[in-house]
Amino acid sequence: MADVLSGVASPSDVRALPEAALPGLCEALREAIITTCGRVGGHLGASLGAVELVVALHRVFHTPQDALLFDVGHQAYAHKLLTGRRDRMHTLRQAGGIAPFLDPRESHHDALAAGHACTAISAALGLLAGRRQLGHPGHVVAVVGDGALTGGLSFEGLNNAGGSPLPLVVVLNDNQMSISANVGAIPALLRTRNARAFFESLGFTYLGPVDGHDLGALTRALREAKASSRPVVVHALTKKGRGFPPAEADEQTRGHAMGPYEWRDGKLVRSRGGRPTFSEAFAQVLGEALERDPRVVAVTPAMLEGSALTGLKARFPDRVHDVGIAEQHAVTFCAGLAAAGAKPVCVIYSTFLQRAYDQVVHDVCLPGLPVVFAVDRAGLVGADGATHQGAYDVSFLRPLPGLTQWAPMVGEDLAPMLATALQASGPSVLRFPRGTLPDLPPELAHAEPEVTGPSAPAVTAAHGQPAPDARSVTSGRPLSAAVPGGASTSAPGQPAPDALAVSGARWLKRVPGARLTLVTLGPLGLSALEAARNEPDWSVLDARRAWPLDEAALLEAAAGGHVVVAEEGTVRGGLGSAVLELYAAAGIAPRVKLLGMPDVFLPHGDARVQRTQLGLDAAGLRHAGHALLGEERR
Amino acid sequence: MADVLSGVASPSDVRALPEAALPGLCEALREAIITTCGRVGGHLGASLGAVELVVALHRVFHTPQDALLFDVGHQAYAHKLLTGRRDRMHTLRQAGGIAPFLDPRESHHDALAAGHACTAISAALGLLAGRRQLGHPGHVVAVVGDGALTGGLSFEGLNNAGGSPLPLVVVLNDNQMSISANVGAIPALLRTRNARAFFESLGFTYLGPVDGHDLGALTRALREAKASSRPVVVHALTKKGRGFPPAEADEQTRGHAMGPYEWRDGKLVRSRGGRPTFSEAFAQVLGEALERDPRVVAVTPAMLEGSALTGLKARFPDRVHDVGIAEQHAVTFCAGLAAAGAKPVCVIYSTFLQRAYDQVVHDVCLPGLPVVFAVDRAGLVGADGATHQGAYDVSFLRPLPGLTQWAPMVGEDLAPMLATALQASGPSVLRFPRGTLPDLPPELAHAEPEVTGPSAPAVTAAHGQPAPDARSVTSGRPLSAAVPGGASTSAPGQPAPDALAVSGARWLKRVPGARLTLVTLGPLGLSALEAARNEPDWSVLDARRAWPLDEAALLEAAAGGHVVVAEEGTVRGGLGSAVLELYAAAGIAPRVKLLGMPDVFLPHGDARVQRTQLGLDAAGLRHAGHALLGEERR
Repeated sequence: MADVLSGVASPSDVRALPEAALPGLCEALREAIITTCGRVGGHLGASLGAVELVVALHRVFHTPQDALLFDVGHQAYAHKLLTGRRDRMHTLRQAGGIAPFLDPRESHHDALAAGHACTAISAALGLLAGRRQLGHPGHVVAVVGDGALTGGLSFEGLNNAGGSPLPLVVVLNDNQMSISANVGAIPALLRTRNARAFFESLGFTYLGPVDGHDLGALTRALREAKASSRPVVVHALTKKGRGFPPAEADEQTRGHAMGPYEWRDGKLVRSRGGRPTFSEAFAQVLGEALERDPRVVAVTPAMLEGSALTGLKARFPDRVHDVGIAEQHAVTFCAGLAAAGAKPVCVIYSTFLQRAYDQVVHDVCLPGLPVVFAVDRAGLVGADGATHQGAYDVSFLRPLPGLTQWAPMVGEDLAPMLATALQASGPSVLRFPRGTLPDLPPELAHAEPEVTGPSAPAVTAAHGQPAPDARSVTSGRPLSAAVPGGASTSAPGQPAPDALAVSGARWLKRVPGARLTLVTLGPLGLSALEAARNEPDWSVLDARRAWPLDEAALLEAAAGGHVVVAEEGTVRGGLGSAVLELYAAAGIAPRVKLLGMPDVFLPHGDARVQRTQLGLDAAGLRHAGHALLGEERR
Repeated sequence: MADVLSGVASPSDVRALPEAALPGLCEALREAIITTCGRVGGHLGASLGAVELVVALHRVFHTPQDALLFDVGHQAYAHKLLTGRRDRMHTLRQAGGIAPFLDPRESHHDALAAGHACTAISAALGLLAGRRQLGHPGHVVAVVGDGALTGGLSFEGLNNAGGSPLPLVVVLNDNQMSISANVGAIPALLRTRNARAFFESLGFTYLGPVDGHDLGALTRALREAKASSRPVVVHALTKKGRGFPPAEADEQTRGHAMGPYEWRDGKLVRSRGGRPTFSEAFAQVLGEALERDPRVVAVTPAMLEGSALTGLKARFPDRVHDVGIAEQHAVTFCAGLAAAGAKPVCVIYSTFLQRAYDQVVHDVCLPGLPVVFAVDRAGLVGADGATHQGAYDVSFLRPLPGLTQWAPMVGEDLAPMLATALQASGPSVLRFPRGTLPDLPPELAHAEPEVTGPSAPAVTAAHGQPAPDARSVTSGRPLSAAVPGGASTSAPGQPAPDALAVSGARWLKRVPGARLTLVTLGPLGLSALEAARNEPDWSVLDARRAWPLDEAALLEAAAGGHVVVAEEGTVRGGLGSAVLELYAAAGIAPRVKLLGMPDVFLPHGDARVQRTQLGLDAAGLRHAGHALLGEERR
């Protein structure tokens, strides 16, 4: 098997193979994908389903003269293996290694970079229009999953392409799944003769459906498409996870994104992290809110799996809405729900909330509707890489009037913050990171109500400007009362207790006469506490709200003349920038150092390593504090 | 005529009228719409086309128990007239007057606020789902123009609604227009039997097409839709501008948005502003770029009219692409064009660029493609009001790596800035405001190359960090060399001369040893120059680039210890915030005052009046400077 593959260094080698060798090539590709993903994890299911399709595409089209654009790119591991990247596939999704998606900087056989769904048709049409205008020859093919058809951008592209004379080729890789099952009217449409009617009504020639695992049928259809002088769609039916029984047997996602696994005694063993993730902890408190208040509704654009909501969907099938890959609709749908008096919680990754920015501005914030945005994957995302970094949410949301932004430091913050957001009369955000829950330091779990100085860090509420409708915090209540997975703080059917509400910032360490304060957002507070452990004149303030600021607490933080603000997000316009605006308005001028994500698109890698490299761990915060103090002594 | 209307104070009065009175009611509504728009301007065409539809909707559905959501809302003047706002219609779009679009805060017959297209289906589905969940009765109707069907959000809503059991009623108000003619495959689809196939394939019951000016047919179709137990679409064919000959005769837009007009001697006389607008001036320099370089392409999502591009579309039909109401596609299409080696210029309003935020992040900035965004309507938008304010672009774009943001102060800046952006290897923004070009003060038009102090303001380039690929500025070159409408600086077919390139900030007034510097973005530089005219120790710096900053110039600006930063955009995360970040990083602490748009959604009104109220005129800037200096003396 491997022999076939080792003889293929580029697509021209694929085209040189005799037809009889192709089934063996496909088998070798599947073996390589399964082995790679078993070793390092990855987007297994979609790539296994597209093996024959990728081979057929390279038999018919000649990259890079012809351009293949794979939507998202997670179905294109076979394409990576056939385009000179086989020897490095074991570095997939790791720092310095093969990218999780496609990127022209990695191979000139990748026409365009992507990682978000639904971009391929529009980008391909632009590429084709540009090439024609400049007199460059070549065909342009957009390979699009059926999941991406629910996304509005795909439709905008289809409408423009179908009304254009350019011979764009769209290949529909229809595996009946988004990440989990596809939703809305599209799935039924694609299973019937309506598929032809739909695409023909949009101006496309329709070819298919063809068996996406039949190389002969695929090749014939693609050749016909290549010969077309007008827009054409090839509808290929594929099976996600094809050829790997554990993926085929996984009814939820068909092995969409699997972590590393191995075979032991003939059985598949998947390694699993021990601690729950922030997503899982949030899903739990959301479940409690759904139980407690019949007005609560959850909405997510195809992130049921990623945000650990499948259990809730099973428990509350009518109140947990997966609207498919349709971020804009998810947010405007929530606006409608809120206008009706429901309490929608929109669960969405930071990077995908970018897709719905205008809907947040225009449909939610402008009318001031009480939609709660649970912004998952906020900050560094590790192996998912540059396309998925949650770097911008605080900055693009902060200017929006009336929107309150919360950030939990530990899992124990989730329940009170969600309760506070659900009580608010306007919109709120809860941003939490990808990854497992941090340990709660013992001194925080058993915090005393009073400020006692550096030797006994205390959790107390700073008395700042309260958030709209937020009730006052119960200072010093042990955080462990709301531990996810521990005892629930309220019985089903009961309203959220007042004690759950939070307001402003929280002093993690409050030293009278401190020279320097570390101000943080989210779990960075724990690193700051560690950084300040042996610094008797440093205070630590967990901002808790990125916006609006707890002004009183932040003015107190400036009293010693030195403030380090650290956040896992861009430093441009984020919390640090907000703090600078506050100090300028107050006419005070402490020395301020901003730490955060830099002005580059951070690539894939280990988030913990990246955090260290960016100076966002305890050592980095300590160093920043000393540097700020040291500069003054110069 | 007017008598019929004066007897109608609410929708129940409409339902109480005998059928025979309805044609007279429609005629009276048209008369009121024509009179109102003649007096104060407004969205004439769409509202005239929807008169019978609005009357029929109120005959069949009972607001507010039933909810009517008009997409955009600009077709709903008849609805305003029938819901108790007739006596105030003469205040339309003016400060404190009737809103340009719909808003529940204005009438409980308006179900949801909107002003951007394509939101109605998603919002209506959410409203219906929320009402059902909470046990509230009532029908929900989304009235959507055919122009909005090209927008992805509408499709996302249709897909979700068509796959849902909820009996959402969608009324398609099909006038064959977006703002100008509708584009892509949708127009042909709606003119054929494909319309039925399209909506049925998406899971809707299809009723129609019906004559949208036949009250009987409309009423019957709406009653049938009301009785449906599943999603249903009513396809009504209407004529934009119906009943007003000058609008019907306007082939471009059918009187979409007309300024005030009056009848004189039987002829329609429209008042027109004398000076060209920023949009017109930009269209002219874009035309010169199209002539000069065959790689240049213009793309706009349905803003041909608003951004004055119809002339260019006629001159360069294959290189000026109107992609319809499809902002996301417009940007990703540009990414494809740039990847092919073309030089796309995406002309889009600031408020609509919000719709394509992720496409700017993921499709353009991440791969670093040289797309130029001409961001029109940046800043205050006057009569268009809260939904359309161009408040956020600098803030949401500033964190994006590699994106350079330019802002012209005067029309003369447009040509060199566009030339610089087209020469860049990465993406650029040019943001310019709604409104007419300012006068160029004589001292700037005849500027000398040397800095001569306060008595002779000079235009010189600050020597800051150059923008990527920007060539150096020709200091002191008279600005009038590039006056739009004057002599072109280059003959057709010739490359842009080097002299056209700009780099960093520009000193409008540079006083050695200045105590205070006014730093501005865009036309505010002229107000700052006026504010500083009698202040011998104030300098004025036109930042020109909102990002990246011209660091050397801005550090020099801080030398006197007092800096006022003024921008027409939110103060949260904008230019002022960037300046604060720079000073913090440099370890300097001048007193800084930020001026800009406040933390509220600014309503409709006269932009010049609002500018004064916000302190963004010369008097406001002068006051801010004195206050900043005065605080120090306290």
